[in-house]
Amino acid sequence: MTASHAVAPFRAIVLAAGEGTRMQSAMPKVLHRIAGRSMVAHVLHALEAAGARDVVVVVGPGRADVADEARRVAPGAVLREQRERLGTAHAVLAARDDIAADNVDIVVAFGDTPLIQPETLARLHGLLGGNVAVAVLGFEAANPFGYGRLVRHGEDLAAIREEKDADEAERAITLCNAGLMALSGAHALSILERIEPNNAKGEFYLTDAVDIARGLGLRAAVTVAPESEVMGVNDRAQLAVAEAEIQRRLRRAAMLGGATLQDPDSVYFSADTRLGRDVTVEPHVVFGPGVTVEAGATIHAFSHLEGAIVREGADIGPYARLRPGADVGAKARVGNFVELKNTVMGAGAKANHLAYLGDGVVGEGANIGAGTIFCNYDGFGKAKTVVGKGAFVGSNSSLVAPVTLGDGAYIGTGSVITADVAPDALALARGRQMEKPGWAAEFRARNASRKK
Amino acid sequence: MTASHAVAPFRAIVLAAGEGTRMQSAMPKVLHRIAGRSMVAHVLHALEAAGARDVVVVVGPGRADVADEARRVAPGAVLREQRERLGTAHAVLAARDDIAADNVDIVVAFGDTPLIQPETLARLHGLLGGNVAVAVLGFEAANPFGYGRLVRHGEDLAAIREEKDADEAERAITLCNAGLMALSGAHALSILERIEPNNAKGEFYLTDAVDIARGLGLRAAVTVAPESEVMGVNDRAQLAVAEAEIQRRLRRAAMLGGATLQDPDSVYFSADTRLGRDVTVEPHVVFGPGVTVEAGATIHAFSHLEGAIVREGADIGPYARLRPGADVGAKARVGNFVELKNTVMGAGAKANHLAYLGDGVVGEGANIGAGTIFCNYDGFGKAKTVVGKGAFVGSNSSLVAPVTLGDGAYIGTGSVITADVAPDALALARGRQMEKPGWAAEFRARNASRKK
Amino acid sequence: MTASHAVAPFRAIVLAAGEGTRMQSAMPKVLHRIAGRSMVAHVLHALEAAGARDVVVVVGPGRADVADEARRVAPGAVLREQRERLGTAHAVLAARDDIAADNVDIVVAFGDTPLIQPETLARLHGLLGGNVAVAVLGFEAANPFGYGRLVRHGEDLAAIREEKDADEAERAITLCNAGLMALSGAHALSILERIEPNNAKGEFYLTDAVDIARGLGLRAAVTVAPESEVMGVNDRAQLAVAEAEIQRRLRRAAMLGGATLQDPDSVYFSADTRLGRDVTVEPHVVFGPGVTVEAGATIHAFSHLEGAIVREGADIGPYARLRPGADVGAKARVGNFVELKNTVMGAGAKANHLAYLGDGVVGEGANIGAGTIFCNYDGFGKAKTVVGKGAFVGSNSSLVAPVTLGDGAYIGTGSVITADVAPDALALARGRQMEKPGWAAEFRARNASRKK
Repeated sequence: MTASHAVAPFRAIVLAAGEGTRMQSAMPKVLHRIAGRSMVAHVLHALEAAGARDVVVVVGPGRADVADEARRVAPGAVLREQRERLGTAHAVLAARDDIAADNVDIVVAFGDTPLIQPETLARLHGLLGGNVAVAVLGFEAANPFGYGRLVRHGEDLAAIREEKDADEAERAITLCNAGLMALSGAHALSILERIEPNNAKGEFYLTDAVDIARGLGLRAAVTVAPESEVMGVNDRAQLAVAEAEIQRRLRRAAMLGGATLQDPDSVYFSADTRLGRDVTVEPHVVFGPGVTVEAGATIHAFSHLEGAIVREGADIGPYARLRPGADVGAKARVGNFVELKNTVMGAGAKANHLAYLGDGVVGEGANIGAGTIFCNYDGFGKAKTVVGKGAFVGSNSSLVAPVTLGDGAYIGTGSVITADVAPDALALARGRQMEKPGWAAEFRARNASRKK
Repeated sequence: MTASHAVAPFRAIVLAAGEGTRMQSAMPKVLHRIAGRSMVAHVLHALEAAGARDVVVVVGPGRADVADEARRVAPGAVLREQRERLGTAHAVLAARDDIAADNVDIVVAFGDTPLIQPETLARLHGLLGGNVAVAVLGFEAANPFGYGRLVRHGEDLAAIREEKDADEAERAITLCNAGLMALSGAHALSILERIEPNNAKGEFYLTDAVDIARGLGLRAAVTVAPESEVMGVNDRAQLAVAEAEIQRRLRRAAMLGGATLQDPDSVYFSADTRLGRDVTVEPHVVFGPGVTVEAGATIHAFSHLEGAIVREGADIGPYARLRPGADVGAKARVGNFVELKNTVMGAGAKANHLAYLGDGVVGEGANIGAGTIFCNYDGFGKAKTVVGKGAFVGSNSSLVAPVTLGDGAYIGTGSVITADVAPDALALARGRQMEKPGWAAEFRARNASRKK
Repeated sequence: MTASHAVAPFRAIVLAAGEGTRMQSAMPKVLHRIAGRSMVAHVLHALEAAGARDVVVVVGPGRADVADEARRVAPGAVLREQRERLGTAHAVLAARDDIAADNVDIVVAFGDTPLIQPETLARLHGLLGGNVAVAVLGFEAANPFGYGRLVRHGEDLAAIREEKDADEAERAITLCNAGLMALSGAHALSILERIEPNNAKGEFYLTDAVDIARGLGLRAAVTVAPESEVMGVNDRAQLAVAEAEIQRRLRRAAMLGGATLQDPDSVYFSADTRLGRDVTVEPHVVFGPGVTVEAGATIHAFSHLEGAIVREGADIGPYARLRPGADVGAKARVGNFVELKNTVMGAGAKANHLAYLGDGVVGEGANIGAGTIFCNYDGFGKAKTVVGKGAFVGSNSSLVAPVTLGDGAYIGTGSVITADVAPDALALARGRQMEKPGWAAEFRARNASRKK
């Protein structure tokens, strides 16, 4: 991870051990995805962009799936297991050895608040220093009921007051605790170890850090983020709300960057979708992970792209499906009901209608007729189809891989091509047309009594 | 119909005789559909769930279509015709013989308020008893202008005051009359028969029941429902508003039940759609009536399902069309631009690209190549295609029904199969590949002057 | 252009010289499209409908593209070039010769306010007359900060006060200047020529016309339009907002006219889409320019239509693509994954699945099998396919154009048809089926070690 925002180094501790029973899922909560990424991956990306020096992810017992995802996204992440569920401070102390190893500041984030922004994390960490040992992230709650209220005293945070302990004046406070916290490296461990389970549930609450720090003569501070940024996800309706917020951000950024989205609300982005200038996206388009669309390209309605690159001025869809490994050349065209998988199309090449091009290379300017299939699978393995530059493949043809058509080759309509074709040659493989006069009239007469 | 909520029995009277001229339609208003069901069907389903003992549907003169729909949904329904349009009370009295036949309570509902909930109907009926002879359903109107105001006196409903008759204090009331009413069996007929057409239009208004009951020394009561639940549909813009509300309900229920809807607003449900736990639905999916998706299945973007079952862990789409009778086995896969109609696919079978499988049976683990067509129609009748377990059908093949491929059979690419194929055999039906060297170069030279 | 609203004639001056750098586009701002039309075309259409006698379009230096679009939409339009950007009054005076040529009233509109309505333009012009020489269009701003406030004095407009010049009382005014202005023919030139660049930027502002007119003893008046109607488009996020507003209008009009839109928010219209009564449109449909759908037709989900006519009771989609020149006859059916381009289908004809019909004529009642391709392109030119009435084309057939099938002809499945077929004849072109017993079992044994 590289520092990009904050000056002092910090270690992120990501709490990702929650079971998330309200998700009604066999999959742990933090692995549910928005915008093509798991929630925990969103948090890890934000922490990296905020300049985290290293990261500890606290997972539930035996959750190899969460650990794998954390390592995939943040290869240097340290994984710690929280064996019992005894509260947020207890979860943080699953990283006790890491905290004890040096005096680096820590920032505690949550695997189920996927909308948190790097700037907010850096700002939270930036509050530490001088006598400030604890920094808390707050938000102005539309409906504060049930949240811990942030009681301020001058510039300081005086207390985090739970709903049940608040007096009338405190209940009127709308600034609430978002949960995220930064702790100065010099004091983190001594504060955390002083937290006691003095509450009805007998759990160790991170929120007690404020009182403890102040009791030690240290100060606590607060910074504020929009409620939409700190929302936690506890069920799939909230997952959809978080998804909607992230989509809103991605759509707006795409538009202000020079892409036209005719109906932004109907375009689904992944977090890593890249659109060039003067790209036009018609309604009802889905971008899975790993898509780049270069300047001037058009993505027509009902297209579905994933792991694909669309080069300058190319024309995609409607109803085009680009799967991983699709690489559509400049001014090339992939038309309706056409699927590309692991196939490179050269500049100006065309596959306009009803085709499946899998594991192929299509040369510049080649024309793939309607109904063409690259037969890349024989029931056991996959093989490659190569179509030369300027070749013409007639409609309803089947190219049985491995097979190569030379540059300028011409395939007659309806052919099954099983052997390579020389450049500039015509290849045909089909029956000769024959006619039975009057047969259809007889057939109709014979069948007239059958029901349609 | 079976009682599920209310204790005392009641008879529902559904007024469904309105013409609905603002719908601008040749079809009567109550037959217009939301979430895959006619409006009157929604009302009949809600009444059944509320525990209605029997139901009378009042239809306009000669409206066999409405009568047929009512009988289809509620086979025991009694149909009554309202020959003249003389007001709501007159419409109810089209069921005079039914009301007179016994002393059962009645609940009057409307065929054009399709969002009414069973709990509300049961609660309305539950108000009756003791001295309460009339129960009225109210709603808090965002804009009460034009609605009849519900004037309360203690717990009783004192009057329903029309806009034009209301004084200033009454016009300030926001609790308005939703139209639905329950009448105690002991008094219903005597109250209804006392209603007189003392108004500008000379019509018989059900709302007069409140005054009449109170004049008889009986009481009237009121219960309240959200405005969204009691909205009437008078034009197609309101139809769309009602549809949006019902979709909102269906989407939320699906999510809280454990399905992920990546973009809930882009998923269209039918009222009877059933989704299992850990089902994922990508954006832009349409569920027509009669769909069940079992646990762990994924429905990719741009899929359209109707009358279909998708079994555990199956993978559907994008761009899959499942028509009635489609039954996709566990972990089977129906890919893009593939249509299934009246076809059963065994567990683990695959049809990944550009295929039409009509009237077929596909065995476990079989692989249907891209571009395959089950030719089930000869211009007169339909016939069946059977593909054995583990069979492999090469791309661009046509299976001309009736035809059976044995288990493990292999069909060469581009074949037209008209006769049965033995298990484990290879069948081929295609021309031999031939090549004309240099033909394409000559063809291009010959045509160079033609316009592209 | 024909007068339809206003009585007195007027000349429209459309300012279309803005560069629109915030659009981040190589294309000038006013050519960006909403609802299938450029923004400047929307304004020109509105002016025509408002009764403009003639129109002057002021374009930026060398903007042939904007000039071409203006001439395409309004063939009689006069084009004037604004060589320097010295303010709105300076832009209007690019049309000085036109204004000087006669005493006709002028209405100044903007190429980047595409939502302006004809009624509003006519009402604005209608304010002129008597002593009223200047008419200004206002709107009630949700957030007036930054807009010029309209200060009224009785019925007159007393001043347009810019934010920085306004006192506290004036800043509290929410009625703001929308920019559009009408000037009486008798005084337009003398007012415009008196405008001076007495401001920080040294530009000539049209808003000064109010003060000048009043200084000449003339009056200024104001009329009000909704804020949504006068919004200007400066970046692509605002373009999307304007698009959303126009789509809202088009959807509502379609519904009130008797079309059912199951999910209106998912249907994308062009400004010229025409839907008949009792047309049903399922979710997720895109109407490009030039589409007419006649009464009783159904457009199923995921269909994409452009330049097409769908006749009475026809059934389209799901996943139907109708391209320019598609003409689908009464009760005809175009099914899923079927594309029509420049093809006429007779009444009752069917193409139900996976087909490309380009440059064709399909006779009444003909049946086009799944997977059929009209091979209209040989790499150089396009040719025509004619299918006779009642013909039956078997699945996976390729009809190589130019080719004609007679009435009642029958094409065997999987045939490549290159020669005309007589009426009522059967034509076939395919290999004979052969079988190799046990081959598949051996093949599997041979390949068992290969990875899947």
